[in-house]
Amino acid sequence: MSRIVVSLGGNALGKNPAEQKELLKNVAFHIVELIKDGHEVVIAHGNGPQVGMINLSFTESTSTPDMPFPECGAMSQGYIGYHLQNSIGNELAKQKIKKSIASIVTQVVVDEFDPAFDRPTKPIGNFYTHEESKVLEKTMGYDMVEDAGRGYRRVVPSPMPIDIKEIDIVKSLLNEGHIVVTVGGGGIPVIRKGYSLVGVPSVIDKDNASAKLAELVNADILIILTAVDNVYINFGKDNAEALHEVSIERLETLIEEKQFAEGSMLPKIRASINFARNKKISVIASLDNAEKAFNLEAGTIIKG
Amino acid sequence: MSRIVVSLGGNALGKNPAEQKELLKNVAFHIVELIKDGHEVVIAHGNGPQVGMINLSFTESTSTPDMPFPECGAMSQGYIGYHLQNSIGNELAKQKIKKSIASIVTQVVVDEFDPAFDRPTKPIGNFYTHEESKVLEKTMGYDMVEDAGRGYRRVVPSPMPIDIKEIDIVKSLLNEGHIVVTVGGGGIPVIRKGYSLVGVPSVIDKDNASAKLAELVNADILIILTAVDNVYINFGKDNAEALHEVSIERLETLIEEKQFAEGSMLPKIRASINFARNKKISVIASLDNAEKAFNLEAGTIIKG
Repeated sequence: MSRIVVSLGGNALGKNPAEQKELLKNVAFHIVELIKDGHEVVIAHGNGPQVGMINLSFTESTSTPDMPFPECGAMSQGYIGYHLQNSIGNELAKQKIKKSIASIVTQVVVDEFDPAFDRPTKPIGNFYTHEESKVLEKTMGYDMVEDAGRGYRRVVPSPMPIDIKEIDIVKSLLNEGHIVVTVGGGGIPVIRKGYSLVGVPSVIDKDNASAKLAELVNADILIILTAVDNVYINFGKDNAEALHEVSIERLETLIEEKQFAEGSMLPKIRASINFARNKKISVIASLDNAEKAFNLEAGTIIKG
Repeated sequence: MSRIVVSLGGNALGKNPAEQKELLKNVAFHIVELIKDGHEVVIAHGNGPQVGMINLSFTESTSTPDMPFPECGAMSQGYIGYHLQNSIGNELAKQKIKKSIASIVTQVVVDEFDPAFDRPTKPIGNFYTHEESKVLEKTMGYDMVEDAGRGYRRVVPSPMPIDIKEIDIVKSLLNEGHIVVTVGGGGIPVIRKGYSLVGVPSVIDKDNASAKLAELVNADILIILTAVDNVYINFGKDNAEALHEVSIERLETLIEEKQFAEGSMLPKIRASINFARNKKISVIASLDNAEKAFNLEAGTIIKG
């Protein structure tokens, strides 16, 4: 029996509630296979499209207040967490497995002096014209950037997670045999101000948050589920090659060779390395290969 | 030491994130006093204004999907739960009390044959003109009613809670000494369909959900915090009289005399009676009298 952190991509969750519900049936099936193998499972998930959608609805709506980013993240944890625990709970009931699952609203602590706060890089929400973006910079104090010819978008900082406020809650539940959903969307980002934790408009990379979670619950394996079956070198080229088992040293060389796309595969690899470094195992695999990946028979396996 | 369920009104949480944060500082102070007295605390809360705001923002926004009511409820659990655990966590840290708190995304099971489904009574969201309400009836299948001369509003059923899906999670956390926020907004209403739980557009009264919660965690006391210091007879009249300690029998007589306002004090009293009936104690009090109420020195005390 292993303690496993599974990190699900926000893009795999769909663009609206009906789509999310449908896609999660498949996710639930794979997660329950893992539980049937006797593993302790903690689930982390992204929220990119969903938190963008929530933020946008408050921005566009004329009779509701503006909703700050940490609060939108909290809403996305409720929204995605509900569907996750409902679909996994339904699959468990169907297979007559007596296990409880719940989603924990989770705050993740970041350092207010993290250099990321000086350099917002994470694009969120919808696209604006140049004129609109100038207005938003002025009226809302947003940082706006041109995004790959598709228009202007708000960018927020993406600081590193340093602690998970509700980690004792997560540990208690795991120790009691429950399944836990936590650090949704990378967690609600908060900084320390004296004794208080205060929400900050930023987005924590969900794979970095998952690696921190895996470290803090002393997991054996971190599994990052994504759209591709493996990590590739020369991705998209004729000489593309899937990596099966790979050392941290080899990955670090490949990172220096700029083999992995920034904002896509690179953060997953960095998070995997961070976790594997302490004699642990990280796996990057597709959802469809999840069971095999859980048994270290598919995906890209990084052993520290 | 007692196990106490505290039920907070959604109206006490304010109309926007800044207001909610500010109001919760006071709530947090009172809850922490209770914790310092050594009690085990579970917090339930309403979400009337908040879930209406969330639903409205998705309705008004043109580029986001329509958001069903159960999902809006889940978002409100994230939104209010985050502020609750943050403000109480900050107050605990300030007073150097080592306790963890977390909000649990919570599904509450209702009976699909509950007669409430044939008679939607709970007004939600914003006001429409007669013409708009006709369009919504036709296009969205909503039930619309005229609301006290202020316009037309959607009404949804308000069924009784029969079970709390995540109750084992709540119990585990309480047994480990943690503080729990659960059944936010009365819980996400779900019905059983074969092995599955399926969300239904309805709103569970948060005091009924709190009473069910208090029963299931075997609490000693249910405290319903509201805007008034006591339950009154002849409320608003010259001969108004505050009730201090009152028996279930007396309350039932007063209910028959129509002493309590439907949709306001009456559901709180019914929920209090339901819980107190099994030799327990329910208290209805104002937030400012919370500590005294916790020690049964203020509010209206109903002993079963």
